[in-house]
Amino acid sequence: MAIEVFWSSGSPFSWRVLLALEAKRLPYQSRLLEMSKREHKTPEFLALNPRGQVPVLRDGDYAIYESIAILAYLDRKYPATPLFGVNAEETGTIWRAVCEVTCYLDETTDDFILPIYFGRAEAEGDQVRAALPAIQSELARLEATLRERAKTGAWLATSAISAADIVLFPLVMSLLRAAGKPSAAAFDHGLTPFSEKYPALAAWVARVEGMPGYERTYPPHWR
Amino acid sequence: MAIEVFWSSGSPFSWRVLLALEAKRLPYQSRLLEMSKREHKTPEFLALNPRGQVPVLRDGDYAIYESIAILAYLDRKYPATPLFGVNAEETGTIWRAVCEVTCYLDETTDDFILPIYFGRAEAEGDQVRAALPAIQSELARLEATLRERAKTGAWLATSAISAADIVLFPLVMSLLRAAGKPSAAAFDHGLTPFSEKYPALAAWVARVEGMPGYERTYPPHWR
Repeated sequence: MAIEVFWSSGSPFSWRVLLALEAKRLPYQSRLLEMSKREHKTPEFLALNPRGQVPVLRDGDYAIYESIAILAYLDRKYPATPLFGVNAEETGTIWRAVCEVTCYLDETTDDFILPIYFGRAEAEGDQVRAALPAIQSELARLEATLRERAKTGAWLATSAISAADIVLFPLVMSLLRAAGKPSAAAFDHGLTPFSEKYPALAAWVARVEGMPGYERTYPPHWR
Repeated sequence: MAIEVFWSSGSPFSWRVLLALEAKRLPYQSRLLEMSKREHKTPEFLALNPRGQVPVLRDGDYAIYESIAILAYLDRKYPATPLFGVNAEETGTIWRAVCEVTCYLDETTDDFILPIYFGRAEAEGDQVRAALPAIQSELARLEATLRERAKTGAWLATSAISAADIVLFPLVMSLLRAAGKPSAAAFDHGLTPFSEKYPALAAWVARVEGMPGYERTYPPHWR
């Protein structure tokens, strides 16, 4: 039975799973849910994830949710093209980079993008402004890391693309998309022009975009 | 060269690493840092972790920070007594439980315990109250899970103790310690008496406390 992925367009957490499947060249069936129809709150879906959130992956009789856990499952089940390294040191370094994204960027990114996406940028301006220093500081840290890595052709954590790249990428894309919205102009976010402000990050984004299968992962409603 | 752990007393993130080392029966050298002396901000320590946070683990020439990443490193480097499962399905389920703790409990626990620990419970009462519904809802979910697991003698995620137990345990202990402080009485936290409110969680806490080596991990300044 094929791997099934339940996801929603534009969810950075869903995007991680699609990128991982493409990076590992695993075939899968796409189950794109419509949030507006509340397809993530049906009894059938809640049986897969009682939290009613995407992504969920089903592989035969086994179902799993939480994007990072799905990546860990896939890497152990299908070890070819490892996303968590080829030895303990790489595994540790990749997980450190993953944890830094989930601890220091996941929530602050939401605080920036959600008010802008959902027309609440003015009403929730304080929240947006409060999120910016942490976002800018993490991006500066990532820029410095990627500038170093680029010297040897490496990715974010290791010489090969890894879960660290896959976990970070959809957040960066979400930040850029939000920064390009008219209501974002009211904030001194410093994200654009991205290739001038963060050249190493911009080059890394282009590199991920060049990955085989990337186009299949791109949020349909962003086109 | 022995494994070294740099940690601070009462840091739930540090406690995870000590518990993992004890569960895996790995010898280690304890480097207890004094936060009040800012030993986590010295140049030597910042060379190990530029964020200046504990825990950090050093194993020969390799240094790593972020508690969850340290657990992942240790499990791959020293695979005996695995903490991330014996097959892909267990790995996924354990990581799902770990992610649920880090996504839904780590920050809210801080929002509850830090104001109480640091004498800001009155000034930051709104923050404490805002954290409580999420804490109560996660604990209720965990209580239901552990009640089911107890029927087969299992731990939180799998039949053996795993990273899921180790990641959760210090947070529960921190919540209980804060709930026992006089200033916590001003909040309707519903955490105590714990063995009445959350009997399956209380039984699970006692089980972790019975683990060989547990006493070595207990925060010295809590005694």
